[in-house]
Amino acid sequence: MKVLVLNCGSSSIKYKLFEMTTKQILAQGGIEKIGLPGSFLKMTLPGGEKKIIEKDVPEHTTGVQFIFDTLTNPEYGAVKDLHEIKAVGHRVLHGGTKFSGSVLIDDAVIAAVEECCDLGPLHNPANLKGIYAVQKLLPEVPQVAVFDTAFHQTMPDYAYLYAIPYRYFEKYGIRRYGFHGTSHRYVSKRVCDFLGIPQEGTRVITCHVGNGGSIAAVKDGKCVDTSMGLTPLEGLMMGTRSGDIDGGAITYIMKKEGLTPDEMSNLLNKKSGVLGMFEKSSDMRELEAAVKNGEERAILTEKMYFYRITKYIGAYAAAMNGVDIILFTGGVGENQSSARAAVCKNLEYLGVKLDEEMNNKIHGEEAVISTPDSKVKVVVIPTDEEMMIATDTMNILNERNK
Amino acid sequence: MKVLVLNCGSSSIKYKLFEMTTKQILAQGGIEKIGLPGSFLKMTLPGGEKKIIEKDVPEHTTGVQFIFDTLTNPEYGAVKDLHEIKAVGHRVLHGGTKFSGSVLIDDAVIAAVEECCDLGPLHNPANLKGIYAVQKLLPEVPQVAVFDTAFHQTMPDYAYLYAIPYRYFEKYGIRRYGFHGTSHRYVSKRVCDFLGIPQEGTRVITCHVGNGGSIAAVKDGKCVDTSMGLTPLEGLMMGTRSGDIDGGAITYIMKKEGLTPDEMSNLLNKKSGVLGMFEKSSDMRELEAAVKNGEERAILTEKMYFYRITKYIGAYAAAMNGVDIILFTGGVGENQSSARAAVCKNLEYLGVKLDEEMNNKIHGEEAVISTPDSKVKVVVIPTDEEMMIATDTMNILNERNK
Repeated sequence: MKVLVLNCGSSSIKYKLFEMTTKQILAQGGIEKIGLPGSFLKMTLPGGEKKIIEKDVPEHTTGVQFIFDTLTNPEYGAVKDLHEIKAVGHRVLHGGTKFSGSVLIDDAVIAAVEECCDLGPLHNPANLKGIYAVQKLLPEVPQVAVFDTAFHQTMPDYAYLYAIPYRYFEKYGIRRYGFHGTSHRYVSKRVCDFLGIPQEGTRVITCHVGNGGSIAAVKDGKCVDTSMGLTPLEGLMMGTRSGDIDGGAITYIMKKEGLTPDEMSNLLNKKSGVLGMFEKSSDMRELEAAVKNGEERAILTEKMYFYRITKYIGAYAAAMNGVDIILFTGGVGENQSSARAAVCKNLEYLGVKLDEEMNNKIHGEEAVISTPDSKVKVVVIPTDEEMMIATDTMNILNERNK
Repeated sequence: MKVLVLNCGSSSIKYKLFEMTTKQILAQGGIEKIGLPGSFLKMTLPGGEKKIIEKDVPEHTTGVQFIFDTLTNPEYGAVKDLHEIKAVGHRVLHGGTKFSGSVLIDDAVIAAVEECCDLGPLHNPANLKGIYAVQKLLPEVPQVAVFDTAFHQTMPDYAYLYAIPYRYFEKYGIRRYGFHGTSHRYVSKRVCDFLGIPQEGTRVITCHVGNGGSIAAVKDGKCVDTSMGLTPLEGLMMGTRSGDIDGGAITYIMKKEGLTPDEMSNLLNKKSGVLGMFEKSSDMRELEAAVKNGEERAILTEKMYFYRITKYIGAYAAAMNGVDIILFTGGVGENQSSARAAVCKNLEYLGVKLDEEMNNKIHGEEAVISTPDSKVKVVVIPTDEEMMIATDTMNILNERNK
């Protein structure tokens, strides 16, 4: 059974085609600069080479058609006929409080996703464009929505509410939603399978850290708290996002600089984080290189980045009255040994003992990186959001066809 | 040696007169509604009764003169002659990065406090008015400034910086300063004296919780992190302050409601926190009463209030790689047993064992409330900021007179 996964942004569409019986990736790539000059499709061929095809892509339907043409291309395509694709799974950013799991898309679901556009103004409209395009081009193919927020819907009210006038929660739905839910769900389950233990009775802190980053406290397989909030700005320091900051500092800067809410939001989301502090780049690999060169500001930036992860792990250990597994995933979490070592350095009080040799060796593969006598297991689990979306899509289809 | 302590707000002046040889309080009270209709002075007489004197107080110099008149009143005054007062100590909110300790006030200090007015726009100008008034009325008497921010100046850069463009730190001094420093300093030292252990080598988490609230991580007697930030808004949920909130939620609300930065700041500082959630009151005693009545919203509000304290304790345990003492002070911390029990409930993983009977018994007095076998000592230490200001003032005077 072939499942296509689409992740539609406002000016991009990423795709991955899976053969679910073998869990094989048949095709993958993405279109960039939709609606802009110089749009193109970049794909990875089965051998690993990249191929770029330039083409004018004014909007998402043309883009999805372009992907379909590429998938069926006699020369480099992955399928002979589009009807081999049995379902399309979409990453959808914001499901508000309406969705606590993945769903088969119908008119009611579309209407609900539209209602959440206000909470995810950059992503939800783009996600919908992808859904509409597939509806138009392949009306018979079932589509599934997999929400970034869904896994976090199990948080208790005292963890998801902000201490602001209650009417803003009632009127606008202002609360913590959390994001990266598909990743936190996948890795928090996968780690238990990997270790051969049940999710029930296990307290996991999942650190999804990279250019974006969030941490979740997962107890008995259910999310009880997470660091991202109403928007993906809150929590950790990220590539270009500030993460936590005094609300008083926000209104202070706005007043001093005469910024509008949109300008301030742009500053906190696009010009802050590693980029704001390091100033040369938002990329953690470039930051790490500068640290190795002994650049003072780079060293400070990295310390801030690590310190905040450590504090969140501490906070979530308290939220769950302890922790059994600390899990690293995401670009930094999977690959940067120095980051994992720095974060764990101050966690000895929890009984964390890192196996330094093992930690240094592990990049992008599943492994326990704590010592056998460590009270808390520290584990690396590469995330795979697309595979999770494809799996959800397949499961929902199988359920429907029963 | 008699020392007068003044805490000047924009429309109030609190005072306390100490005899430092005996640590006795000779007089205490305050003026309210300065510059407003219906201003009055309320004092506590030695027997404990309150006395109110109504009088028009248009500005701070008249206010300080009114206090001096009261102190020397033949009927209810505490001194025969003003010259018995050897020094005046002032609580000053914001010392920026200029002051890491208390100082004798001279022209340079006044200029530096003036420069910090921008960071503490509500408090610093009022604090200065009190200093000017004493200069005018008692020009010979030395004055000392004790800063709310000074104790936190030992925080490392990676803890006090926000992950925003670095130029805002350079241009405006935007960083974490922390407040309640005099209280955190006093209780973190006092608890070690009380337990008969050295500050060196001891990790203390001081929870100053009440209508305002902040937490500090104190290692070797030095603050390494604290929950309040550039302003006293950040961190815990408070009586009317939101504490931590997604920056994205702030710009979202501003846009939806068309609020200016000042209006948003007012919303977060004056209409949020317990008041925003509970809606009936910002007072923790009223909240507790409503909880006992089984009111649903009150129960939720209290859970949020407690949960955030627990998370900060967890985060600061990670910041210090463990904790030896958890200390409660402030209105709620000193008096509300149920709050201490709720906060400590999820800290068993740290080895915290509360002595429930002891905890229920202790209100406003120094006591260990953990069991003898608790790995972490949990202690109540009533704070005494005025005594600390008086002591600093006396010490600086003695140093000068050497």
